[in-house]
Amino acid sequence: MKRIGVLTSGGDAPGMNACIRAVVRAGLAHGIETVGIRRGYTGLLKCDTEFLTSRSVGGIARWGGTVLETARCPEFRTADGQRKGVDNIRDLGLDGLIVIGGDGSLRGALALHQAGVPCVGVPASIDNDICGTETSIGVDTAMNTILDAIDKIKDTASAHRRAFVIEVMGRRSGYLAVATGVAGGAEMVIVPERPQSTDDIIREMLQASERGKPHFIIIVAEGATPRASEICDTLATARPGFEARLTVLGHVQRGGSPSAADRLLATKLGAGAVEALIGGRSGVMIGIQAGQPVSFPLEQVLSEERPAEEELLRLEEMIAL
Amino acid sequence: MKRIGVLTSGGDAPGMNACIRAVVRAGLAHGIETVGIRRGYTGLLKCDTEFLTSRSVGGIARWGGTVLETARCPEFRTADGQRKGVDNIRDLGLDGLIVIGGDGSLRGALALHQAGVPCVGVPASIDNDICGTETSIGVDTAMNTILDAIDKIKDTASAHRRAFVIEVMGRRSGYLAVATGVAGGAEMVIVPERPQSTDDIIREMLQASERGKPHFIIIVAEGATPRASEICDTLATARPGFEARLTVLGHVQRGGSPSAADRLLATKLGAGAVEALIGGRSGVMIGIQAGQPVSFPLEQVLSEERPAEEELLRLEEMIAL
Amino acid sequence: MKRIGVLTSGGDAPGMNACIRAVVRAGLAHGIETVGIRRGYTGLLKCDTEFLTSRSVGGIARWGGTVLETARCPEFRTADGQRKGVDNIRDLGLDGLIVIGGDGSLRGALALHQAGVPCVGVPASIDNDICGTETSIGVDTAMNTILDAIDKIKDTASAHRRAFVIEVMGRRSGYLAVATGVAGGAEMVIVPERPQSTDDIIREMLQASERGKPHFIIIVAEGATPRASEICDTLATARPGFEARLTVLGHVQRGGSPSAADRLLATKLGAGAVEALIGGRSGVMIGIQAGQPVSFPLEQVLSEERPAEEELLRLEEMIAL
Amino acid sequence: MKRIGVLTSGGDAPGMNACIRAVVRAGLAHGIETVGIRRGYTGLLKCDTEFLTSRSVGGIARWGGTVLETARCPEFRTADGQRKGVDNIRDLGLDGLIVIGGDGSLRGALALHQAGVPCVGVPASIDNDICGTETSIGVDTAMNTILDAIDKIKDTASAHRRAFVIEVMGRRSGYLAVATGVAGGAEMVIVPERPQSTDDIIREMLQASERGKPHFIIIVAEGATPRASEICDTLATARPGFEARLTVLGHVQRGGSPSAADRLLATKLGAGAVEALIGGRSGVMIGIQAGQPVSFPLEQVLSEERPAEEELLRLEEMIAL
Repeated sequence: MKRIGVLTSGGDAPGMNACIRAVVRAGLAHGIETVGIRRGYTGLLKCDTEFLTSRSVGGIARWGGTVLETARCPEFRTADGQRKGVDNIRDLGLDGLIVIGGDGSLRGALALHQAGVPCVGVPASIDNDICGTETSIGVDTAMNTILDAIDKIKDTASAHRRAFVIEVMGRRSGYLAVATGVAGGAEMVIVPERPQSTDDIIREMLQASERGKPHFIIIVAEGATPRASEICDTLATARPGFEARLTVLGHVQRGGSPSAADRLLATKLGAGAVEALIGGRSGVMIGIQAGQPVSFPLEQVLSEERPAEEELLRLEEMIAL
Repeated sequence: MKRIGVLTSGGDAPGMNACIRAVVRAGLAHGIETVGIRRGYTGLLKCDTEFLTSRSVGGIARWGGTVLETARCPEFRTADGQRKGVDNIRDLGLDGLIVIGGDGSLRGALALHQAGVPCVGVPASIDNDICGTETSIGVDTAMNTILDAIDKIKDTASAHRRAFVIEVMGRRSGYLAVATGVAGGAEMVIVPERPQSTDDIIREMLQASERGKPHFIIIVAEGATPRASEICDTLATARPGFEARLTVLGHVQRGGSPSAADRLLATKLGAGAVEALIGGRSGVMIGIQAGQPVSFPLEQVLSEERPAEEELLRLEEMIAL
Repeated sequence: MKRIGVLTSGGDAPGMNACIRAVVRAGLAHGIETVGIRRGYTGLLKCDTEFLTSRSVGGIARWGGTVLETARCPEFRTADGQRKGVDNIRDLGLDGLIVIGGDGSLRGALALHQAGVPCVGVPASIDNDICGTETSIGVDTAMNTILDAIDKIKDTASAHRRAFVIEVMGRRSGYLAVATGVAGGAEMVIVPERPQSTDDIIREMLQASERGKPHFIIIVAEGATPRASEICDTLATARPGFEARLTVLGHVQRGGSPSAADRLLATKLGAGAVEALIGGRSGVMIGIQAGQPVSFPLEQVLSEERPAEEELLRLEEMIAL
Repeated sequence: MKRIGVLTSGGDAPGMNACIRAVVRAGLAHGIETVGIRRGYTGLLKCDTEFLTSRSVGGIARWGGTVLETARCPEFRTADGQRKGVDNIRDLGLDGLIVIGGDGSLRGALALHQAGVPCVGVPASIDNDICGTETSIGVDTAMNTILDAIDKIKDTASAHRRAFVIEVMGRRSGYLAVATGVAGGAEMVIVPERPQSTDDIIREMLQASERGKPHFIIIVAEGATPRASEICDTLATARPGFEARLTVLGHVQRGGSPSAADRLLATKLGAGAVEALIGGRSGVMIGIQAGQPVSFPLEQVLSEERPAEEELLRLEEMIAL
């Protein structure tokens, strides 16, 4: 193994750069050079690449986003696109490929593996919706970003006695909503895995008010039912004179300097992916379990649904008391 | 002068607590005790108060919000309400009152002054919409909060080549929008003082794209025309395949640990207000000019409109190049 | 089980308050009331306590430090002191006790357990030096604080081409040093578990300079050999015209608003400790393994030495390339 | 005026990059191209330059440090060195030069002006020790960095009842120490302008303890008498059983993403410097007064000593009560 490729794909997550740095430097430590492929599978199909040296990845671990950029690539979902990808990997002289990204990106990695390219995936997704790993690159930073917003709103919430509705990321997964709800002491959390009626929400609000809660903060995942804006409208009309304010964090959650935990995780997984390739593994994702990198078949990662965080939801209800 | 009162009123602003601390401790340094009035004019009408000691304000300067809370008080806008307020101030044995807040709060202070109560105002409003002072308590912290969001979005913006629309506070004043637009390097700023057409916005976006700008970030004050959500919808339809993402910061902007500049400002103004009362001044606001506290008649503060930030808007256009 | 006590002891760690909140509210969810014991074992010997209600712990999870304060208590290390503690626990009507702290604090918990008091420990120590748990309350926040300092120094380091020596906490354990060294991209890490000569350090510095590294940052645990200040002096004399600058973070590392991960961890462990007591367990510590609270005998926790982070040290050398 | 040069020199300050961006883009808005000179006067003597385009300064405003780097250049202090600098400026075809830095850097700018090169200075120094301007680039960010450290120490300080000594930058100027002492609520501030005896410090500490202060935090400028480490040793021996802990922030204070205020200031001053050159001014520094850029003769800037902050010192004593 002389030369490997690395690409980032899908929604970007803080820590992707730290992972790229780890791939390059772990590679060098094992005498392997690394080619960065720009803009995910789009760049693979265009052979849009650059050599990554120890110096060229120096200092990037601090930055959010990804120096290799990401893009969506519908073409790569086709058999033709994948064949072209395999050809380009051969033309570039790559003995293996590391794919950093979420479910969709890992699906591409599995296709390349099945086509005979040694390929290892690394989970990066702020939503924490990937199976086979305790957590993914970007989750910790996103949680801290959301928590910072909740803390700031609490300053003003207790000054005003209003309801605040905060929309956070999570199309299919309520992890960010419930984890930050517990950490931030939200009064209520609405997640995609557990739809609620607006009546339930109003009742909870009135009960919290009766229990003497000085504020009412609801964290709503973007994929939840009802949606954040809908909840906001409902609450505002539920109690005369009561105000409900909406915060939509949006892509703020995808950015920011990665936290220590995310940089550590990204370094462990990036180095683990290089060593997996060297060890002859392919078609696997390197995840984290109890602080150690472990490998998990991509096929299994992609066929299972990550279960809802029942224990966290239970904690959230306890803590919101 | 033996005893003064202090209250915070209107939308809360980070630094109000640092101002309360300064009032109490500057008072003590001059042998004056301070009574905190809770929930603004509402508390004044209910004589809802507490003695503030050096210890009871120890450590509060770090916190956002206000330990005295704020509230709206429609009753205090009536002549009856104001008469009751004057009576309560006499009953509480207050020789003067310091009012920390925005335009509406200062209007109440002027009414009390006109009714014979020695009364000094301190400008606190994240919108920076108060005349007679370079800046108000809370503006600097709010700017840093917005800037942090812009910086985070830029991480992901340059990774994705999308448009991002960020709604910030400012009903009448575009200061926060334009100041953070300059500081954060936004491509466009929409302020209440300068309505724009959606056609202008689309043209700007296309031109920026032609100039090679890797992203297009628009900061929109909540009082601007068109509104942020409207712009977002427009941009999304303007260019096929192009995505426009919305961030609404909302009350996040009102919270947070006050910045060094806000705590310094709040301390100067709070101490200045106490010393103004001691010096026999009333019906004035203590503002900041060139780093020094200055007093300015409340009547003038409330009759003038703060002009639009033409020079900042010019800078913003230059810098967005 | 009707009433339990909770105390924080030893060096304080961010997240202790979130753990107190979790104990109180998990207790209430199970019909148990909680008595807070102030200033650790000192307060236990003086019966210095307060009832903690859902409201009295509202909002505390955001703050660093501990609302119950901590203190050292040499008297409690004696048999007489412990006997008095047991008596007071009976007098206070406590059916169990939760002790949040580091090694020394857990030793006290074990003594109480051995004297017949149902007692459960929760690991809180920014040093990450406690066995039987992947991590302890406070570690994640401290890592982020250190990382923030490293990032800031890198801004100026690359502008100036100097050596920077940063002393971080860790008397016996190099975890904080090596983990932040990996995350922050330090060129070298000196930990108590692996003493080094100043010659080695100078040689590393010269080699890094030859490899084209624009800066040389060394993270030194406070218990390491040689000490940070010594290294700084050595480097400054090793190369004429070369400057070495020292940063000593000190107790800054113990403070700060706890990170999302620390608040989540503290909540899981606090609730887990309550449920362990309810389940009849005593003499155990509730630690975290793979994201789940697990119980581990205190005797074992206190008899084993946490091994050095060999794998992290290996990663650090790879990444520092 | 077709082409100008820009360089950063001396200790770097957060906001230098925002100033470079402003110079380049304000230049372009007036049809002027900008050449960046690397590593201050060192680069000028070696003609080490690069063209700066709107794109090449895109996104740099967020970063601490300076993309042009800085260096000390003893050679430029000689007549020969300055002559060579003038020659190189002519060879590079520069119609003017903008120098961003502190006192020493501005002295170089004055020399170039006196040798006939149109030259304008911009004050950048975290120490806030430059005359002719209310504040300098970098001061606000450094204050926030120090304040963050004070806030964190206060978390643990109130938990432990100890003394904390924090050394901050400021060789000749106590501005950072006193401003952050006021903002952060330190009990005592030691500045170069006002030497104190260790006896005074011990007396203050004992008095604060008697007044019920839960902690004792001293901010010490690095140029003050006595020095921070000396104070720490003294306090530790003054009261048996009492602990004094030292924090040395060091170069952490020079780094970090510049605050909103610093980026705004840097933008105003950078654009103001370009427009001053266009307007035919030279030998001036562009400072800030009441929010507006003003020009001030360099000769005067460099011949006056910035007075001690008597008013801030008075406030600090009041607030530390």
